[in-house]
Amino acid sequence: MAIKTPAQYNESLKDLHPTAYILGEKVENVFEHPLIKHMKASVAKTFELENDEEGRKHLVTKSDLIDEEVSRFLKFYTSPEDLLAKVRMLKFLAQNIGGCYMRCTGMDAISSVGIEVYNCDQKYGTNYWQRLIDFVTMMQKNDYVLFSGVTDVKGDRSIRPSQQKDPDMYLHVVDRNDDGIVVRGAKIHQTGSLCAHWGIVVPTREMREEDKDYAVSFAFPADSEGVIHVYGRGTLESRAMEGCDLGNVEFSKFAPMVIFQDVFVPWERVFLCGEYEYAGNMVRHFGNYHRHSHGGCKCGVGDVLIGAAATAADYNGLPNVSHINNKLAEMLKVTEAIYGCSIAASVESVETPSGIYNVDPVLSNTSKLYEGKELAEVIRMMIEIAGGMVADVPSDKDFANPEIGPLLHKYLKGAEGVSTEDRVRIFRLIEKLAFESRDIVSNIHGAGSPETHRMTILRNSNIEAKKKLAKKLAGIKEE
Amino acid sequence: MAIKTPAQYNESLKDLHPTAYILGEKVENVFEHPLIKHMKASVAKTFELENDEEGRKHLVTKSDLIDEEVSRFLKFYTSPEDLLAKVRMLKFLAQNIGGCYMRCTGMDAISSVGIEVYNCDQKYGTNYWQRLIDFVTMMQKNDYVLFSGVTDVKGDRSIRPSQQKDPDMYLHVVDRNDDGIVVRGAKIHQTGSLCAHWGIVVPTREMREEDKDYAVSFAFPADSEGVIHVYGRGTLESRAMEGCDLGNVEFSKFAPMVIFQDVFVPWERVFLCGEYEYAGNMVRHFGNYHRHSHGGCKCGVGDVLIGAAATAADYNGLPNVSHINNKLAEMLKVTEAIYGCSIAASVESVETPSGIYNVDPVLSNTSKLYEGKELAEVIRMMIEIAGGMVADVPSDKDFANPEIGPLLHKYLKGAEGVSTEDRVRIFRLIEKLAFESRDIVSNIHGAGSPETHRMTILRNSNIEAKKKLAKKLAGIKEE
Amino acid sequence: MAIKTPAQYNESLKDLHPTAYILGEKVENVFEHPLIKHMKASVAKTFELENDEEGRKHLVTKSDLIDEEVSRFLKFYTSPEDLLAKVRMLKFLAQNIGGCYMRCTGMDAISSVGIEVYNCDQKYGTNYWQRLIDFVTMMQKNDYVLFSGVTDVKGDRSIRPSQQKDPDMYLHVVDRNDDGIVVRGAKIHQTGSLCAHWGIVVPTREMREEDKDYAVSFAFPADSEGVIHVYGRGTLESRAMEGCDLGNVEFSKFAPMVIFQDVFVPWERVFLCGEYEYAGNMVRHFGNYHRHSHGGCKCGVGDVLIGAAATAADYNGLPNVSHINNKLAEMLKVTEAIYGCSIAASVESVETPSGIYNVDPVLSNTSKLYEGKELAEVIRMMIEIAGGMVADVPSDKDFANPEIGPLLHKYLKGAEGVSTEDRVRIFRLIEKLAFESRDIVSNIHGAGSPETHRMTILRNSNIEAKKKLAKKLAGIKEE
Amino acid sequence: MAIKTPAQYNESLKDLHPTAYILGEKVENVFEHPLIKHMKASVAKTFELENDEEGRKHLVTKSDLIDEEVSRFLKFYTSPEDLLAKVRMLKFLAQNIGGCYMRCTGMDAISSVGIEVYNCDQKYGTNYWQRLIDFVTMMQKNDYVLFSGVTDVKGDRSIRPSQQKDPDMYLHVVDRNDDGIVVRGAKIHQTGSLCAHWGIVVPTREMREEDKDYAVSFAFPADSEGVIHVYGRGTLESRAMEGCDLGNVEFSKFAPMVIFQDVFVPWERVFLCGEYEYAGNMVRHFGNYHRHSHGGCKCGVGDVLIGAAATAADYNGLPNVSHINNKLAEMLKVTEAIYGCSIAASVESVETPSGIYNVDPVLSNTSKLYEGKELAEVIRMMIEIAGGMVADVPSDKDFANPEIGPLLHKYLKGAEGVSTEDRVRIFRLIEKLAFESRDIVSNIHGAGSPETHRMTILRNSNIEAKKKLAKKLAGIKEE
Repeated sequence: MAIKTPAQYNESLKDLHPTAYILGEKVENVFEHPLIKHMKASVAKTFELENDEEGRKHLVTKSDLIDEEVSRFLKFYTSPEDLLAKVRMLKFLAQNIGGCYMRCTGMDAISSVGIEVYNCDQKYGTNYWQRLIDFVTMMQKNDYVLFSGVTDVKGDRSIRPSQQKDPDMYLHVVDRNDDGIVVRGAKIHQTGSLCAHWGIVVPTREMREEDKDYAVSFAFPADSEGVIHVYGRGTLESRAMEGCDLGNVEFSKFAPMVIFQDVFVPWERVFLCGEYEYAGNMVRHFGNYHRHSHGGCKCGVGDVLIGAAATAADYNGLPNVSHINNKLAEMLKVTEAIYGCSIAASVESVETPSGIYNVDPVLSNTSKLYEGKELAEVIRMMIEIAGGMVADVPSDKDFANPEIGPLLHKYLKGAEGVSTEDRVRIFRLIEKLAFESRDIVSNIHGAGSPETHRMTILRNSNIEAKKKLAKKLAGIKEE
Repeated sequence: MAIKTPAQYNESLKDLHPTAYILGEKVENVFEHPLIKHMKASVAKTFELENDEEGRKHLVTKSDLIDEEVSRFLKFYTSPEDLLAKVRMLKFLAQNIGGCYMRCTGMDAISSVGIEVYNCDQKYGTNYWQRLIDFVTMMQKNDYVLFSGVTDVKGDRSIRPSQQKDPDMYLHVVDRNDDGIVVRGAKIHQTGSLCAHWGIVVPTREMREEDKDYAVSFAFPADSEGVIHVYGRGTLESRAMEGCDLGNVEFSKFAPMVIFQDVFVPWERVFLCGEYEYAGNMVRHFGNYHRHSHGGCKCGVGDVLIGAAATAADYNGLPNVSHINNKLAEMLKVTEAIYGCSIAASVESVETPSGIYNVDPVLSNTSKLYEGKELAEVIRMMIEIAGGMVADVPSDKDFANPEIGPLLHKYLKGAEGVSTEDRVRIFRLIEKLAFESRDIVSNIHGAGSPETHRMTILRNSNIEAKKKLAKKLAGIKEE
Repeated sequence: MAIKTPAQYNESLKDLHPTAYILGEKVENVFEHPLIKHMKASVAKTFELENDEEGRKHLVTKSDLIDEEVSRFLKFYTSPEDLLAKVRMLKFLAQNIGGCYMRCTGMDAISSVGIEVYNCDQKYGTNYWQRLIDFVTMMQKNDYVLFSGVTDVKGDRSIRPSQQKDPDMYLHVVDRNDDGIVVRGAKIHQTGSLCAHWGIVVPTREMREEDKDYAVSFAFPADSEGVIHVYGRGTLESRAMEGCDLGNVEFSKFAPMVIFQDVFVPWERVFLCGEYEYAGNMVRHFGNYHRHSHGGCKCGVGDVLIGAAATAADYNGLPNVSHINNKLAEMLKVTEAIYGCSIAASVESVETPSGIYNVDPVLSNTSKLYEGKELAEVIRMMIEIAGGMVADVPSDKDFANPEIGPLLHKYLKGAEGVSTEDRVRIFRLIEKLAFESRDIVSNIHGAGSPETHRMTILRNSNIEAKKKLAKKLAGIKEE
Repeated sequence: MAIKTPAQYNESLKDLHPTAYILGEKVENVFEHPLIKHMKASVAKTFELENDEEGRKHLVTKSDLIDEEVSRFLKFYTSPEDLLAKVRMLKFLAQNIGGCYMRCTGMDAISSVGIEVYNCDQKYGTNYWQRLIDFVTMMQKNDYVLFSGVTDVKGDRSIRPSQQKDPDMYLHVVDRNDDGIVVRGAKIHQTGSLCAHWGIVVPTREMREEDKDYAVSFAFPADSEGVIHVYGRGTLESRAMEGCDLGNVEFSKFAPMVIFQDVFVPWERVFLCGEYEYAGNMVRHFGNYHRHSHGGCKCGVGDVLIGAAATAADYNGLPNVSHINNKLAEMLKVTEAIYGCSIAASVESVETPSGIYNVDPVLSNTSKLYEGKELAEVIRMMIEIAGGMVADVPSDKDFANPEIGPLLHKYLKGAEGVSTEDRVRIFRLIEKLAFESRDIVSNIHGAGSPETHRMTILRNSNIEAKKKLAKKLAGIKEE
């Protein structure tokens, strides 16, 4: 049963009892909470599509580890084709969900960790690679959802982990014994931690010898003792709480903070512990893979942005207007560039000693830089096309009011033949697409900040070789 | 008593009983509603500053109509200096309020209407100009708050008012007698209608003879019979409703829809009624004035965006970092250009026959185009500088929870010497600045959409003269 | 002998006697003209690299038509790999030549024409496909250089070919007999026509029945009777004429106008003649292929731009400066996006009935749109990094002057250890890269203008499908 | 005779015998040289306009020093109105000349030097201010042309003047006696030095005590002994040399390098000599004034760019096309913002102790930053509108050739009613506007590089005050 149905996924969550706080309250039955259920619906949709004829082409693949078909979300990237398939799967899903579906951080993490633990084993004779294989095999067999814990809270950003006044600003090992290790710290922006069965921790930066207790990677059940999920508040909670004016009527995203209060991890789930020289590469791989993932999913979201803008234009009575077509073309340009660079980063991927393929870092970071800067402009153009109604359309509750409901139906209608309800629905969707803080900030800071992307591009481009090209053409002889 | 105190303003609202609906409910005591009171606070702040030593330099001026000092919000623009003073006042206010304070639409409307009713009187012998003078005099004496109703709901955007299947898609005269007129229609995005004493209606577009019932301008008390205010829902209502996580702790903006259900207006408050050839110019003047207003207020908001970003950088432990300084300089560039073009539009203003000065339309629309496109980039840079925490910081309620509050204090601290509370406050402010839909959409669509701004620039630039310059330099002889 | 050496190429030109005018004079020995020889050197460089160990990996491939290795410039695109190899070949060449090498218009034309003549044969029983195969076979055997004639002079752009007052504004058939056809017209911007052995004409737009005489495609020797090449004057002629201050010391580009004065073409070289419904697709394919080609070559040029800027920074004494690194990263971002989208357009290519693969039009046009807009910004950043010296450095002749030469050596030196000559060389190269009009205008208008690219993207994107995605997410039911 | 005629200007040059080298040759009669005469024509045009009815409103003003009308180019800025008048004069001139007219660097220099020598006199009891007054009085009486020498050659940019291995990399005092000083060094990019009567030297950067010999300002005749002008080679020399294909048929710009070979300056023309603490402010004032000047002149050039693009569209048969109008509006937006910010910088100028008004540095640098980045985009849009013909239109000499001239006339015609000659003329003008290296590089580096502009904005903006605004709104209490 390596492919779950949505029903099986929902059933499986009943065995999970994570410690969770939402808006100041400890929540027992967290998966039914109104602020969690739309995210759970996103994840469940991935299981639905694993069982759908078209969807399974994207989401299901043959395992290298077990003799079964498995979710692509749980497979190492062992060929350029795997990387291409990932980008296309994420685009397909985002087109159908209109946002995040939470399963790609775990997918990106297993290959990131895999490349380096293989290298570590070669040097130090550790057996991390086999542990990771065992873990992924178990995950595949159960079609579990895995999130990854990368971003530490970081404290003072100008100083290293071991220099912080409070040593817990980065997750670290505080104790170890024959059975395993004990870790403390906190990871922030943990996309979908409350819809996942397991998490996998990746260090958030390069580490030096003095930071070696911070060079730690491991897997853990989402409801491990000492793991506390705190809901991170975004912009549109009242909609989910009230169950109206949702915009995206089924799906949403959230990203809790996850605190590790002296959590015990058995050795069999530990993938790095002190070998600090691998920490930096792990997170660099993760960053490159995850920027590559964004190339697919944000292009898919982009298709929804474009479709929503075009629909709003129709509903306003402005189909096929020259300046709107021009803006749609510009919106397409950006989303396709984001996608295209991720496709190219797949094609130009390189095999590592582990057999896992690494994406081209220059192209994957180029994709992310366009997302970080120009997707904001795509969203702005969507609002520009849709018009001012995006700002402040009355609520579904007003439409339901018998006194003013009819007046609103009358006055908020647009083009002939379009119901006022549908017109309002598209404005609400656009509002959701433009103002859901988790999504918008993810465009910029998801998978690292733009400055990191720039520096990654610079470091992975051979500037010296380009200088040589220029000098040769200029007639400059180098000794 | 031509200058009110905040207490007098609040007191004066007690006499107003507007018909108002908020999120599906009819609200009796609307000025105390949690979704209205932060906007009322913004307006009250303007009265506080009218009585403040520094503030009065900006907000108070000598009346041309009565022998008193009056609010600048109620004065016609009778010199370039008035226009310069307006821009500077609005910048000053926005710096102190961090957003909209609702009184400039009325201010811009009286001069817009004034220019054209003067022209109309000259041609048709009407006495609109005197009526307007009387109205403004009354407003000055009482230091009343005036909002302007410009934007109609519009129905199908591709056809004219008189062609709409439903004739009420643009506000129009449905009856008239010796005492006055009766009007029907709806105006959308009515910034601050529920904090104002009076409103003034301006046609939303040029009109032709067949549209002449739509060529109507008048003033009306905000609680006139038949006037219904419907709260337009924005993005962050739950914060105001719950009274926490506000970001901007005192002030906010909203913009109801105002429905005119056969509202009677006495002739003495009617400023245009059927003279359709003046409608287009009225709204064009309004647009140009209001884009000019944005040059001041959005620059002031820009100062807050810049200050918030710089504070977040400090709190993250990243003061004086090269790439952040570069971004701050780019943010300054945009906000100063918005401001500078409004200053220049004042200097290059032109006197009209009424004695009112009209701003330079090319420069005021240039200012607005930069706001419409580049202020989004300024906001994006603010988020880029502040970091991912803007997306999903836990709630004040979580901080108040005795179990996890201490953990959040521990894990969300930043640079040494900065309290976690303050760090969270600045992220919340940035969230408010970036994700309050009324403000963000106003940047783009406030005072007309960017396409309108472009066409206004084009029509008011003498392209033929520029062609002649080019031809002459190229050696092309024109016969 | 399907692969020529540079010597063989130069030798082969001796048999060609094209009619050519340069700056007002008829030129007999055109290939030795100072304004042509740097372009001839670019083409000769491609032959050198066909015989070079690294170069042949890119430039040489197995023919499908003859049992030999042939130049990739003469092969149909019969797989996605051919398209990938093309992009990489063009990038490699541009890195080594710093600009245009003239052989890709012919390469793109044969596949463009091929797809449609195959279709035409299926419908009308014509035998164009076999003629084209024969022509390409002959070209491969001789490793000839082929340019393509696409862009007509067009006259009044607002009207169709058959509506022009002068019927010769688009190339057309003016006579036909048993042996062949006679054509008249003029093609502009004919990159490298004076370095090529043959040309191939492609219609420049879609045609209707009334335009059918304009729906014509054929091949012709560059020195056919009636073919007149007129040198198009660019910006930096004096450098080549004087043989100093060249910037790029070996290579340059030019693009004559080619006039067809009643040129006879035998039927065996005619590939379309009147079947107007194929004209539009031919040029659309050409456009898409050629934008795809730019993705490779302009990325290669981009590497030279980046290398030149970085070298100038070193020579100015400013290596490793934060804001310069930031600009280099932005320059890389643009050039890699241009490249990445062309790689992706190859991967997502689609087979046509002819067996030729068509690139993805959305991705290839996205690449070109970034080139058209952002490559200008890359060039601007190169100048920004290099400094003002790009504007007006004294001439090599001044350096050679015994009186002031030593003073210039003294005063124009930069960082320690860099010779003044080398510093001046890099400024001259930057000047060439920034101000050679043929290159800069090609970035914008090469392979069609940006408006065409936008419309191609729009028409090839399924906007209706995107609307459906948005509607479904918004909860809008469609009947 | 404080206002010269063009004839008087030309006559006056006969007395000047500057040492000049052009393209490797020492030139005796430099003012008649084909590469100088179009620049001389630009300067002469300013004298023509001083005597023209409309022109004199802009160019002529009442002197504060002598009882005559004088050229505005020779007046200190003693009011905001002077600064406004300057911006408008420069715009007017650039509209009529299509580029540089060389007289504003001297104008900006006298006020820059003036502010600081006044301060210096107050502190050190020097009498520089009076010397400067005397010098300016003499200049006014003769209506002389003054250029300013600011930019030193600089050597290694990472180190200070006194640290350079060769001490002559910045102009400095090498000897002094009772009569005056002797200076050595070289200034680069000396706009119009070969059309001016006098020059005035301003230090190019802040200086410290160890650099005090470099803290020197003085005036000198352009043909002083030891002053050597070396023509800086730009892009389009062959046009002027051949006297055809000029684009701008009358006017052009150049910028020689000026070498000071131990030049003697009498004390009466020395305005700073060793008082190093004033050097930095002098050049900062100059930078701010000169960026402010660009706001006028580049807006005027922008009008020509827009007019040329619109004319080309007409000539191509594409008047009033939606996407072209959109681009024209965007071009206007940029040029008006550049202008508007300079107008605003005038209005917000501040009086200094000398009585000279200083422009607002934030607004003047904002103007220049838009010029530096977006004027390149305006030029790109001009090319995009005009079409590919800008790249490579045949020469006037080809049109004059009896064999192909008629064919070119036939084939290069555009819209009905437009002569081919005129169409070619407009393409040539566009080529000149887009590819004249002196102009294009000046957009970016004129008056300092963009990085300097950014840092000037940042340093002159009160970021601390903006932080306070944000903190207050966020509810952060500061102790």
